[in-house]
Amino acid sequence: MNHSNERATVGFIGLGIMGASMAGHLLRGGHSLHVYNRTASRAEALLAAGAHWQDSPGAVAAAADVVITMVGTPDDVEAIYFGSEGIVARAREGALLIDMTTSSPALAERIAVAAAARGLRALDAPVSGGDVGAREAKLSIMVGGDAEAFRRAQPILALMGTRIVRQGGPGAGQHTKLCNQIVIASTMLGVCEGLAYAQRSGLDAPTVLESIGGGAAGSFLLNNLGPRILREDFAPGFMIDHLVKDLRIAHGESERLALDLPGLTLALRQYESLAEGGEGRSGTQALYKRYAR
Amino acid sequence: MNHSNERATVGFIGLGIMGASMAGHLLRGGHSLHVYNRTASRAEALLAAGAHWQDSPGAVAAAADVVITMVGTPDDVEAIYFGSEGIVARAREGALLIDMTTSSPALAERIAVAAAARGLRALDAPVSGGDVGAREAKLSIMVGGDAEAFRRAQPILALMGTRIVRQGGPGAGQHTKLCNQIVIASTMLGVCEGLAYAQRSGLDAPTVLESIGGGAAGSFLLNNLGPRILREDFAPGFMIDHLVKDLRIAHGESERLALDLPGLTLALRQYESLAEGGEGRSGTQALYKRYAR
Repeated sequence: MNHSNERATVGFIGLGIMGASMAGHLLRGGHSLHVYNRTASRAEALLAAGAHWQDSPGAVAAAADVVITMVGTPDDVEAIYFGSEGIVARAREGALLIDMTTSSPALAERIAVAAAARGLRALDAPVSGGDVGAREAKLSIMVGGDAEAFRRAQPILALMGTRIVRQGGPGAGQHTKLCNQIVIASTMLGVCEGLAYAQRSGLDAPTVLESIGGGAAGSFLLNNLGPRILREDFAPGFMIDHLVKDLRIAHGESERLALDLPGLTLALRQYESLAEGGEGRSGTQALYKRYAR
Repeated sequence: MNHSNERATVGFIGLGIMGASMAGHLLRGGHSLHVYNRTASRAEALLAAGAHWQDSPGAVAAAADVVITMVGTPDDVEAIYFGSEGIVARAREGALLIDMTTSSPALAERIAVAAAARGLRALDAPVSGGDVGAREAKLSIMVGGDAEAFRRAQPILALMGTRIVRQGGPGAGQHTKLCNQIVIASTMLGVCEGLAYAQRSGLDAPTVLESIGGGAAGSFLLNNLGPRILREDFAPGFMIDHLVKDLRIAHGESERLALDLPGLTLALRQYESLAEGGEGRSGTQALYKRYAR
């Protein structure tokens, strides 16, 4: 068991657009890397660079001191962590488990409890920064779990992100990511409604951005997605299907907390309509299509 | 009639928190300044610094080459511009009229038409940047009107703002300001809902801001009003009563354009409820009170 900052054997499960970039940083950081992905072909570049293939999440866990997961949904997380062939059951003695999927806080707590029962440590560590942040190792990583596990994880997380903050105990990373998504949800309404008004009222929308982008209306989303909207570029930085998943988790949690968030509810409905209308794989800026004509 | 960049005789009507700061910059810029305000006492500091008092908006207009107005509501604008004692009727030959109030685009067009009928030029030039922007002469000024009038106004506007953009013909400045307010409306929903979730879920909200303020959720409002919300500072940078006025104009215009903006509608309702509940003179960040407990 190696608690120092030396090279650890790391397992990485989930090699989507973000996961593949993140795993690559660990490999280049000098770690021995064991990987698994549902679609095996996505591992090829990593294997060519020296990573080791394992045939299941449980097999990755059995081979690694630190197990990182970056999968799709809370159901996926549950499926790979629990059961007799799951990560918790098959992890090595003293292993550290880090789920970087955006998932439910309650599930993060369940994983932490199950891990502790086996003497393991678990962190929830969802990220923000999208595909670009993952590629450039500039993610914001929001961590929940005990302080000792966080200290142990830091040198590994530092290979993937620039802003790494422990937010509290198990689930706190997920709660923080949900805050992030709740802010984004209504901010996107504002961005798209403002630009739709600009277009409908006959203004030149790029000139409007020049006036409003640097002031009180300014935001990362207005200044980064606004120009894409205006050139009708709806390719995904972050996909609507993924945002819908996140907003559903946030909506469920806010109901559980008896917290009425009408902006979140409205944004979720708008995005669900878009997904039902076939825009699920478009970028979140395609919300503009609800307003444009 | 002086169309050059030399010192002009300027009239300024409306010496509220922002107007008084703006008029002061014109005086320090070397212009001869004639002022009027409904509450005369608010002019005292300017008069002590050399400004000349006039007893009515019409009297200001009769004394100045450039007439600037910064009053409360579209009704106030209408009252001072029209009628036999109004600004349009009493303005000097060749005068330039600049309304910097946030007001209705249709009213801006009416003023431009009435001014043109007398051979005058008019601009709508609402601002964003709040009391601080006015004090520091760092306003964003969104201008509608003809290009020649804009050129003539530029050296005067440059004494009050740093980002001065002509957005189009008469009314375009007002339309642009409404875009700004529409973006702000839903962004404020996101900021307050995200922070309310942070608090209710038991997170340490300042630490949450550390994680989310610099990423995709980041905005001027999150980073400037977020910390005020967390220290329960609801003093106005910009008052709810004024935002309600602006959002009502934006809502009316969007209906006229057959543009459904549910985020704007929701934010307007939230802010109207706050105003009805006695929060009209609080800052816009008091929206948080709708969620907190």
